[in-house]
Amino acid sequence: MDEERDKRILLAHGGGGRLMGSLIATKILPRFANATLGQLADAAAVKVGDTSVLFTTDSFVVKPLFFHGGDIGKLAVCGTVNDLAVAGARPVALSLALIIEEGFEMALLEKILDSAAEAAREAGVEIVAGDTKVVERGAADGIFINTAGIGTRIADLSMKHIEAGDAIIINGAIGDHGMAIMSQRKGIEFDSPIQSDCAALSPLTCAILEGTDGVRFMRDATRGGVAAVLNEIAAGARHDIELVETQLPVNAAVQAAADMLGFDVLDIANEGKVIIVVSQASAAAVLETCRAHALGRQAAVIGRVLEAADDEAIVEMATVIGGRRVVQMPYGRELPRIC
Amino acid sequence: MDEERDKRILLAHGGGGRLMGSLIATKILPRFANATLGQLADAAAVKVGDTSVLFTTDSFVVKPLFFHGGDIGKLAVCGTVNDLAVAGARPVALSLALIIEEGFEMALLEKILDSAAEAAREAGVEIVAGDTKVVERGAADGIFINTAGIGTRIADLSMKHIEAGDAIIINGAIGDHGMAIMSQRKGIEFDSPIQSDCAALSPLTCAILEGTDGVRFMRDATRGGVAAVLNEIAAGARHDIELVETQLPVNAAVQAAADMLGFDVLDIANEGKVIIVVSQASAAAVLETCRAHALGRQAAVIGRVLEAADDEAIVEMATVIGGRRVVQMPYGRELPRIC
Repeated sequence: MDEERDKRILLAHGGGGRLMGSLIATKILPRFANATLGQLADAAAVKVGDTSVLFTTDSFVVKPLFFHGGDIGKLAVCGTVNDLAVAGARPVALSLALIIEEGFEMALLEKILDSAAEAAREAGVEIVAGDTKVVERGAADGIFINTAGIGTRIADLSMKHIEAGDAIIINGAIGDHGMAIMSQRKGIEFDSPIQSDCAALSPLTCAILEGTDGVRFMRDATRGGVAAVLNEIAAGARHDIELVETQLPVNAAVQAAADMLGFDVLDIANEGKVIIVVSQASAAAVLETCRAHALGRQAAVIGRVLEAADDEAIVEMATVIGGRRVVQMPYGRELPRIC
Repeated sequence: MDEERDKRILLAHGGGGRLMGSLIATKILPRFANATLGQLADAAAVKVGDTSVLFTTDSFVVKPLFFHGGDIGKLAVCGTVNDLAVAGARPVALSLALIIEEGFEMALLEKILDSAAEAAREAGVEIVAGDTKVVERGAADGIFINTAGIGTRIADLSMKHIEAGDAIIINGAIGDHGMAIMSQRKGIEFDSPIQSDCAALSPLTCAILEGTDGVRFMRDATRGGVAAVLNEIAAGARHDIELVETQLPVNAAVQAAADMLGFDVLDIANEGKVIIVVSQASAAAVLETCRAHALGRQAAVIGRVLEAADDEAIVEMATVIGGRRVVQMPYGRELPRIC
């Protein structure tokens, strides 16, 4: 028994991997037991009057605050828009709450707010509620942002709808956000720097859901990367997943940086990538919709759902060199403060 | 021109007073210009399908995390419940997002989560969405919590409905939360310690709104205290407000602590106090409903709305000693991290 792990919060408790899953399952869910929270969906469906409202929240603690391809303001809007989008909602409105360290530069705050406003405009959502707190120097690290969001449901997606034979699609190359942040933190320079893929996915997901039947489930691959999402799907749907390494879109610079730093691109966070589980019959149509969209040019079918061979469903990858390996749930300490 | 104030964030920017108002008016609102946010209501009314959903958010950075009468978990739930309640909503669901400092004691986290869960149960809301982030030691101060909330509208309240002659009611004694926190921070001991009034107001506000017509507007008196809320009302309604000092409920220990530390109780934060503006005709009924409720035993009519004597509406207090003084909007640096 790991005493330190049980008595104190570790960075990995926030990493989106196994340790975070255990914290949520053992410390959080039992206290707030209700059917909605227990679903652990990207957004919760709440009845308000007769309407089903989708509702979600995320805090953002990314470091550095400004990175190639975005900043914490853009990220805070896109992240919550994406949680609504992948839950099958059209995002409607967001809240934006700031925790700012005393002494933070006003000019940086203004840049961050500009980015958030621009991202909201692009995603077609309004920021309708806010809050500002300031803490003393040293009590926070620059600025933290929380966004919550509400949206209107356009499709009923659930892991429970997933069937053996379904195709697994991703809308583009993986690992860009995580490696953009990580290479900046480590001071690694490339001729053309790796850009975060940070983007609001709702224009794409709404196009998919309105144009095609057969989408079972979607989830954006943020902390914990594609590996975490596929493991969550396997466990939730009780089906094995087969991933085909040669089909995985990865930008060359990202692969190089990951290799150099000793990361598996499957574990690396994305901020504009969605895993779409879709019936075999609709896979081609979804792929076509993706590729016709600016957010899905590099979309690919990267695997499929199989009957579980065993009691415990697993994710297995057919590797480039012709082998097979199990893709595990990341532990969660790969990249603290990635989002 | 105060250069430091313009270039860097100060503690007072988060204090709920004038400087925060200026930050919001000049840096935030122009960037997110929309009709809903511009109303600066305690909760925003958002159309989701055909339903009007009330939506709000607050972050909590209170120090110390545990105080007489509550802790950050209880406060985070009550604070957002109250923003919905005073906006005329029945709270339905909350999100809960944690930013935790690496090394934070698991046992303390569990106590905080227990308090949040208990407060949610008492307020009759479900916590349906969450998020957990962990930052390195020194990058935060223990734990920060954001809650957002959604609710269903039961009354249409607005400063615009306020008329000269309306009564101003408060549901009980003022300054308890702020002085509980402050006396703990300063290490001041009382025979019986000052207890925070931290409580979910929705059971009381729903009882008032369902039992009485004539309520024009409500706001909870948190950061900036009663002084801030009354000044916001005066400015928003364009009416003067007359406050009667002898009618103000203040607990003796709170008054003693405020005097000792040099605070005006009017500026001190509350976490279970609501200012109710109600027509003269309905004032007695509202007062009766309050006094019949556990959250309103010490309720009192503390003043009334007058025609504005001048272009700029003001709050004026008839003092104990028979004078009159203007009650100003607090600057905002009275009590950092009070909530």
